[in-house]
Amino acid sequence: MTTNQEEVKLLGAVGSPFVCSVKIALKLKGIEYNYHEEDLSNKSDLLLKYNPVYKKVPVFIHNEKPISESLVILEYIDEIWKQNPILSSDPYQRALARFWSKFIHDKIVTTSIKAFRIVDDEKEREKNVEESSEALQILENELKEKFFGGNEIGFVDIVAVFIAFWIPLIQDITGLQLFPAEKYPKLYKWSQEFLNHPIVKENVPPRDLLFAYFKARYESLIASK
Amino acid sequence: MTTNQEEVKLLGAVGSPFVCSVKIALKLKGIEYNYHEEDLSNKSDLLLKYNPVYKKVPVFIHNEKPISESLVILEYIDEIWKQNPILSSDPYQRALARFWSKFIHDKIVTTSIKAFRIVDDEKEREKNVEESSEALQILENELKEKFFGGNEIGFVDIVAVFIAFWIPLIQDITGLQLFPAEKYPKLYKWSQEFLNHPIVKENVPPRDLLFAYFKARYESLIASK
Repeated sequence: MTTNQEEVKLLGAVGSPFVCSVKIALKLKGIEYNYHEEDLSNKSDLLLKYNPVYKKVPVFIHNEKPISESLVILEYIDEIWKQNPILSSDPYQRALARFWSKFIHDKIVTTSIKAFRIVDDEKEREKNVEESSEALQILENELKEKFFGGNEIGFVDIVAVFIAFWIPLIQDITGLQLFPAEKYPKLYKWSQEFLNHPIVKENVPPRDLLFAYFKARYESLIASK
Repeated sequence: MTTNQEEVKLLGAVGSPFVCSVKIALKLKGIEYNYHEEDLSNKSDLLLKYNPVYKKVPVFIHNEKPISESLVILEYIDEIWKQNPILSSDPYQRALARFWSKFIHDKIVTTSIKAFRIVDDEKEREKNVEESSEALQILENELKEKFFGGNEIGFVDIVAVFIAFWIPLIQDITGLQLFPAEKYPKLYKWSQEFLNHPIVKENVPPRDLLFAYFKARYESLIASK
């Protein structure tokens, strides 16, 4: 738990799945923190000071020391606050969690976001949808228990919030068949259990707000193509 | 140190900087291992079995348990064999090492390889050279001691073998000004110290062999453009 001596701050943006992952991890561990919502069209001096390399959220600041990149932040949080571990104590299980988290970022997050953004090239868009679908199938086959972390939410589940929350949003807005329940029954069941977890439920953004936000962005992409 | 009960195996390819990183880490820790050179144009059953997701080297196999992705392998090696640690015991220093390693992969390795491969689009090539140069400048400013790891080689140095060994090769073959010594004096000095480290020296591939190999690949790219 945090003490009076500790300062824990998170620079975030409500639409970011990477920020959401960090929020879930902090809450799972019961860490209190100051949250600063960034206006990404007018970035704060704090953001530019603390993440000069990427100028992106999330930035996690612990006693004045900033860390960027959500996977790096999650590992740091798990190392500093030992309660409710999100990574196993077994080195091989830790390696697998790191592997699958990187896989989700590289093969699912990146491709789904591209499929959302690339509105002027049907072929390129289709390619990204296919890559994302193949990667989801691989993940579907990997899911053996209630959560990727076993009976409790772990590192991979937290990273996969993108699949549970953001991909259905993208699907509903674009009409792209990214995550049909019948194609991925295990992953779909996982996504429901995950979103119903009390800590996840209180830390994902309001769906209607994000829906409106991304729909407006999508429509402006379509309009300018 | 390994015991008779342990089986440590590495599937690699001589041209891969990611494999080279793993070799350096194993040697720094004094771990004996079986090395299997993959023919990437005719991948072994072992590779397909142990890395079905990416079918790429390196694959590290410890007592029949396979791990892919070089950064994940390096962390695993450091967790299993505690001697000569490559990551600091301080969580913040560990976070920084993870951040910079990812930065090198995302911003320097990826862009330099693209600059090598994209021979039919001058503008795209130039864009990648510029991105790599900017990232190297950021790294130049970060280098405060003899090595990124301080007085000893650490995680970031091992990942940066790409900068010390592969980038000068690409530069010599393509004529692209990726890493001119006068532009990056600290990084250049680091690269010389690093390549002269006895363990690095005996674990980088023979330069003339790689030069011939990549030159032939480059010429076939040029010929087919």
